[in-house]
Amino acid sequence: VADMLSQTKGFKDRTERFTHYPHLTCDAFHCFSQGDPNWLKPRGVEQRNEGLRWLREHRRASLGGASEQGIVYFADDDNTYSLQLFQEMRNTQKVSVWPVGLVGSMKYESPMVKGGKVVGFHTGWRPSRPFPIDMAGFAVSLHLILSHPDACFDGDAPQGFLESSLLHGLVTMDELEPRADNCTKVLVWHTRTEKPKMKREEALQAQGLGSDPAVEV
Amino acid sequence: VADMLSQTKGFKDRTERFTHYPHLTCDAFHCFSQGDPNWLKPRGVEQRNEGLRWLREHRRASLGGASEQGIVYFADDDNTYSLQLFQEMRNTQKVSVWPVGLVGSMKYESPMVKGGKVVGFHTGWRPSRPFPIDMAGFAVSLHLILSHPDACFDGDAPQGFLESSLLHGLVTMDELEPRADNCTKVLVWHTRTEKPKMKREEALQAQGLGSDPAVEV
Repeated sequence: VADMLSQTKGFKDRTERFTHYPHLTCDAFHCFSQGDPNWLKPRGVEQRNEGLRWLREHRRASLGGASEQGIVYFADDDNTYSLQLFQEMRNTQKVSVWPVGLVGSMKYESPMVKGGKVVGFHTGWRPSRPFPIDMAGFAVSLHLILSHPDACFDGDAPQGFLESSLLHGLVTMDELEPRADNCTKVLVWHTRTEKPKMKREEALQAQGLGSDPAVEV
Repeated sequence: VADMLSQTKGFKDRTERFTHYPHLTCDAFHCFSQGDPNWLKPRGVEQRNEGLRWLREHRRASLGGASEQGIVYFADDDNTYSLQLFQEMRNTQKVSVWPVGLVGSMKYESPMVKGGKVVGFHTGWRPSRPFPIDMAGFAVSLHLILSHPDACFDGDAPQGFLESSLLHGLVTMDELEPRADNCTKVLVWHTRTEKPKMKREEALQAQGLGSDPAVEV
């Protein structure tokens, strides 16, 4: 689900080149017109809920059938994923969890596991949150999504409670399924890409020698 | 080829998990002891030359045979690659080239192509360099590497001339093979990862509650 009002040709070309899945768009920008100064509201809520809505509409037809097989993971273009992660989440019964590296001003955040069960969370911030787990740190079985038709992300949740707003309607801490060797391996990192420098581009553009605007970067 | 004096266990575990290829190490740090203040010298020269040396030693045995089939590309962990790029370079005869996004303070740098031939370069900096092409913007056939046993990167080349120092011994501009729709598509980006913040980690460590050092991040 992309942050845009309608699909541009470049976006469609680029995404169709890589996958065979539908690409949805959604207007996550309308909130800004209300003058919300701190961008607290959108932060991906509408896109993720649109993804859940699409799954419920298109995969519900044969409830209990093969179309219920699947795992829902909220990936993001600024994370770095080990392919092993996708193996780890493959047999999620309800909700599986694992550590996330370089998140929350920490080396990693992680569920704490004792005897194969999640008993708490290693996090540097508000450990009292119901599920102090980054968006990249859990996957949900499609079956659970379909059998809880009202569970979704709450755009009004306070900062840091977005993941909890979905998970508290789906699962208890006791039911979480630890992966990645009982949450001792980091297989996803919250990397962020540096803002690119454009100094020479601007200088060349001032001379009419800038890059071809028809080339998509 | 990794920047380290010897393989650590963590490095070996992690690389063996993903690939079936040899992992070489090389001491790129010894230059620093000379007191070179601006890190001009190493910048990956020794690692890349070690890769070339390994190829010449191990793939030369049956010159002209199947072991000469292959393409040499100098990838880097701070770039982002479209998988399509690896298709584009697949049938390189000598040296294939393409645009690189977000490099050199530009939207992109690229060979300029007329009639299927490279006739110049779009770059914001020293366009007079023999090959003003980023390391991510070209691939070389293994055959060419093996048939030019002395071609390598020159660690004494001035900044910006490292790619030229290899390429000028292998190919002329006229022989470059443009890829990516005659160099109109960007399939690799020189992204750089932000330095991670560690504020809460440091605060927790001060309280003796830091992350488990046994967990590799």
